[in-house]
Amino acid sequence: MEITCSNFNEALPEIEKCIEDSLFVSIDCEFSGLNTVRNINAFDTPEEYYKKMRTNSKDFLIMQYGLSTFKYNEEENNFKQNSYNFYVFRRPVNRNLPDNRFLCQASSIDFLVKHSFDFNKLFKEGLSYLNEQDADKYKEHIDQAYNKVVESIENKTEVKSDSVQVPENAQSFLDDVKVQINNFLNGDDTEMPLPKCNAFFRRLVYQLGESEYRDKISLETRQVEGDRVLFVSRLKTLEEEKQIAKKKYEEQLKELDNFIGFTKVLKCLIKFEKLIVGHNICLDFFHTIDKFLIPSPDSYSEFKDISHSLFPKVLDTKYMSSCEPFKNLISSTILAQLLENLRKKPFELPQIVIEDPSKGYTVEDIKEHEAGYDAFITGLCFLGMWKHLGLLDNKSDTKTFQSMNLLEPYLNRIYLSGLTDNQCILLSGEDSQPSRDHVFHLTFPKEWKLSNIQQLFSPFGNVFVSWLDDSSAYVGLYKTEQAKAAYVSLRNGDGYALKTFASHRAQTATNQLQKKRKNSDPSTPCQRKKMDASVKSTSIDPARNKLFQESNSWT
Amino acid sequence: MEITCSNFNEALPEIEKCIEDSLFVSIDCEFSGLNTVRNINAFDTPEEYYKKMRTNSKDFLIMQYGLSTFKYNEEENNFKQNSYNFYVFRRPVNRNLPDNRFLCQASSIDFLVKHSFDFNKLFKEGLSYLNEQDADKYKEHIDQAYNKVVESIENKTEVKSDSVQVPENAQSFLDDVKVQINNFLNGDDTEMPLPKCNAFFRRLVYQLGESEYRDKISLETRQVEGDRVLFVSRLKTLEEEKQIAKKKYEEQLKELDNFIGFTKVLKCLIKFEKLIVGHNICLDFFHTIDKFLIPSPDSYSEFKDISHSLFPKVLDTKYMSSCEPFKNLISSTILAQLLENLRKKPFELPQIVIEDPSKGYTVEDIKEHEAGYDAFITGLCFLGMWKHLGLLDNKSDTKTFQSMNLLEPYLNRIYLSGLTDNQCILLSGEDSQPSRDHVFHLTFPKEWKLSNIQQLFSPFGNVFVSWLDDSSAYVGLYKTEQAKAAYVSLRNGDGYALKTFASHRAQTATNQLQKKRKNSDPSTPCQRKKMDASVKSTSIDPARNKLFQESNSWT
Repeated sequence: MEITCSNFNEALPEIEKCIEDSLFVSIDCEFSGLNTVRNINAFDTPEEYYKKMRTNSKDFLIMQYGLSTFKYNEEENNFKQNSYNFYVFRRPVNRNLPDNRFLCQASSIDFLVKHSFDFNKLFKEGLSYLNEQDADKYKEHIDQAYNKVVESIENKTEVKSDSVQVPENAQSFLDDVKVQINNFLNGDDTEMPLPKCNAFFRRLVYQLGESEYRDKISLETRQVEGDRVLFVSRLKTLEEEKQIAKKKYEEQLKELDNFIGFTKVLKCLIKFEKLIVGHNICLDFFHTIDKFLIPSPDSYSEFKDISHSLFPKVLDTKYMSSCEPFKNLISSTILAQLLENLRKKPFELPQIVIEDPSKGYTVEDIKEHEAGYDAFITGLCFLGMWKHLGLLDNKSDTKTFQSMNLLEPYLNRIYLSGLTDNQCILLSGEDSQPSRDHVFHLTFPKEWKLSNIQQLFSPFGNVFVSWLDDSSAYVGLYKTEQAKAAYVSLRNGDGYALKTFASHRAQTATNQLQKKRKNSDPSTPCQRKKMDASVKSTSIDPARNKLFQESNSWT
Repeated sequence: MEITCSNFNEALPEIEKCIEDSLFVSIDCEFSGLNTVRNINAFDTPEEYYKKMRTNSKDFLIMQYGLSTFKYNEEENNFKQNSYNFYVFRRPVNRNLPDNRFLCQASSIDFLVKHSFDFNKLFKEGLSYLNEQDADKYKEHIDQAYNKVVESIENKTEVKSDSVQVPENAQSFLDDVKVQINNFLNGDDTEMPLPKCNAFFRRLVYQLGESEYRDKISLETRQVEGDRVLFVSRLKTLEEEKQIAKKKYEEQLKELDNFIGFTKVLKCLIKFEKLIVGHNICLDFFHTIDKFLIPSPDSYSEFKDISHSLFPKVLDTKYMSSCEPFKNLISSTILAQLLENLRKKPFELPQIVIEDPSKGYTVEDIKEHEAGYDAFITGLCFLGMWKHLGLLDNKSDTKTFQSMNLLEPYLNRIYLSGLTDNQCILLSGEDSQPSRDHVFHLTFPKEWKLSNIQQLFSPFGNVFVSWLDDSSAYVGLYKTEQAKAAYVSLRNGDGYALKTFASHRAQTATNQLQKKRKNSDPSTPCQRKKMDASVKSTSIDPARNKLFQESNSWT
């Protein structure tokens, strides 16, 4: 089912119910750009991968979010699914919402257009969202404004602003406004709109009201068909004024709640601690947290803490399918091909039923790269593999789907595309540290090609080369046991320089530290300011709780 | 008339004819973001304005380009107009086209959507374009590839690439390919497509061909319905091979010519040295050059040289309408309101005729912020003012529109929004340097508001305050003759610091120079590299000629 700002509020209770009842949900996102593989090196650690990904992709947006909920029916031994396809885009319709600049990548846009993505719908009807930071700021703004108004009513003083010089070209406008106000005061109307004008002219009118009509009129700005319009009314009693202010404040709180939009769906996933399944989920997961919940921190360990605290159970089907016992049974881990594979022997999919005809897909829909469809397919793949694990363990379906024990080896492991050794981000603990004893850092003349490197190492078998630039690379031996012999034999060669992986990394770290020290010498006030800001880190531990407290206090 | 990639080639000859026949053209652009006013200060020089604008807006795109051509008919004393509305977007459909990352601003996207901009059309059917740099690279790529192929044919050697290790999961695919090739060689077909596969697998097939079928088959990759497919054919004679290579090269040249797309329209404007009219043209003009012709240089004077060399006659109606004799006759220089003004006495628009019913607007169309319509309205405003200048000079329309002398005071002056003294970029010479003797730099406590500053200067009349941050500002006296008295009286005050504008600017310049020197100490190879690159500046003088030489050599 397609969800935009026009049907979200109506659909939300049902979406929340589906999430609550589900055994797990699967997700998929479409982005305004990807481009995360730039400067990723095959021997990077997960931490290095995270930092590069963050830098490379932070400014891209999620434009479509797919969510598929799967509810297990024990009696019928089948899964009931509901799928939702959310268009997500925040228009900066009022001053409390940030006017984001965001990046697009031409190839990603082209890809989406080719898969029938509707950009007009996105930009016109996309659902709003607010991460913690933006929602805090929003709330602060309206609170401050409300408190200021209440205070000024109680002290019987106007909210004073600096007086502004009236420019020549505004005088005739103000003269006209005076005539209108005088006529209004002599008439019977309870209120009167003034001619539309820009913010500066409205300020001048407030100034005029303060100086010439202080005990006679109130002025109020309202939104009328997208324009801000000034309304004049007769001065009210203090109690009336307070009630008006309170009503306005409550409307603003409601508006804020409305702008939280899609974030509410994620808060529901957090609340029920559902297992979240995604295919090649790294970017989806990163952006889900960064855009909709908590801006992603620079620190990798902080990111892991935050995300594990929010989503304690995450499973990446790309990682799962690259591991035993699937690795050798599956020829391609590309989503569509993975499903093809899992629909054939020795695999078997459990029976899937669409719970509500308007809210489900079948495989035959072939809406590849519609986020909702891809989320659905991901859920199927996951079920195919889960069921297979149960069969290997001689478990009935019911037993299989009653316990998550079988999934333990795959849980909270995020696949990292392009790294060697099937490395992953382990959200719930320390990442593994595969040996790099068989890897060397090689510097060579620019003219060298792959064959030169292969030739150099040929006495020690085949090599895996991961280029750093046109005159350096990491070189890994397939025959790891040859590492020592290779190093002894090649370390003093002519025309190139060879280092162990460890010593090169140590050197790089030292260089970076020195550079950082040099830059962070807090000798200028500006730099000192920056440091202060970075010290004030967010408290991570209660990330979950914080999100809920706020959500409760707003609504 | 709407122009997309689907009707551009057909329409181009006529567009070129309209440009050639026109007395002038007017333009207007719609962007993916604006946001240029960030950190612009009212007392900035045009050079400072240019540099800030370049930094702030370089990554935005032009998404729609409006062009209106106006041809004067002396006998009928009217103008025949044709208007075109180009959707401009480059999809990175082949490897020679850069996969741009570009910025969008949520408010700009929202603005366009509200004015019925069709983003699906833009992304699906937008016209391609290539600036000089990208076109050069493109040409170089296909030339190099062609030369390499010809050389290898002549030397009877294959284009060798490094051999790649066949991974386990590819072996069954390659075995299958071998069976197919053997069957093909035993059959009668002249060629055979191989199963679709990714780039790496195609490389493995080429390797297989080289190692096992060297004297028997040729392999060629072709584009089939968006996919790259390998075709096997029997080995050809050298002459045949050369002809195939040449044909392919010619097709690629044609393809390149196609991708130059919208840039051709601008080359036509350059060729005929037409007067270009725009309203508040600064961003339009900057992006026109930067995106479609020559990437905008960091140096302001270089930018002026390049742009004046390309477009020797540019007129900004926003600037024109802010000058004498229009300044006091026109109440608003916002485009729609300007036209309203110019349709009333003492102004009079010349008669405008739509030359071709499918290619013109009337004022009543009210398609505000469709680039083509805004270009048309701009042209009307220009004509209203031009005719008025003629009337003031007692000239007949014919005489007025026969000579551009009347326009001299406005020519090549680009309006800069937000600067004092109606400053502009003078493309054809040195910018004016209005006196800043009545302006001071003031540093004060953070708590100060506008009223504190006004009070400080009150003995010397009203002031204009241009904030720099929350504790400093430039303060200009309206009574300029009070400058010396104010300085003498206030320079030694308590709780604030006052400097003349000149001395503050001198200080800032010195600080920047020192900072630059510190950073540019070429002690590391990386920095040295950067410096070498920056020394290799583009030759500006023949910017026009270069664009034409290349255009001729490609087509």
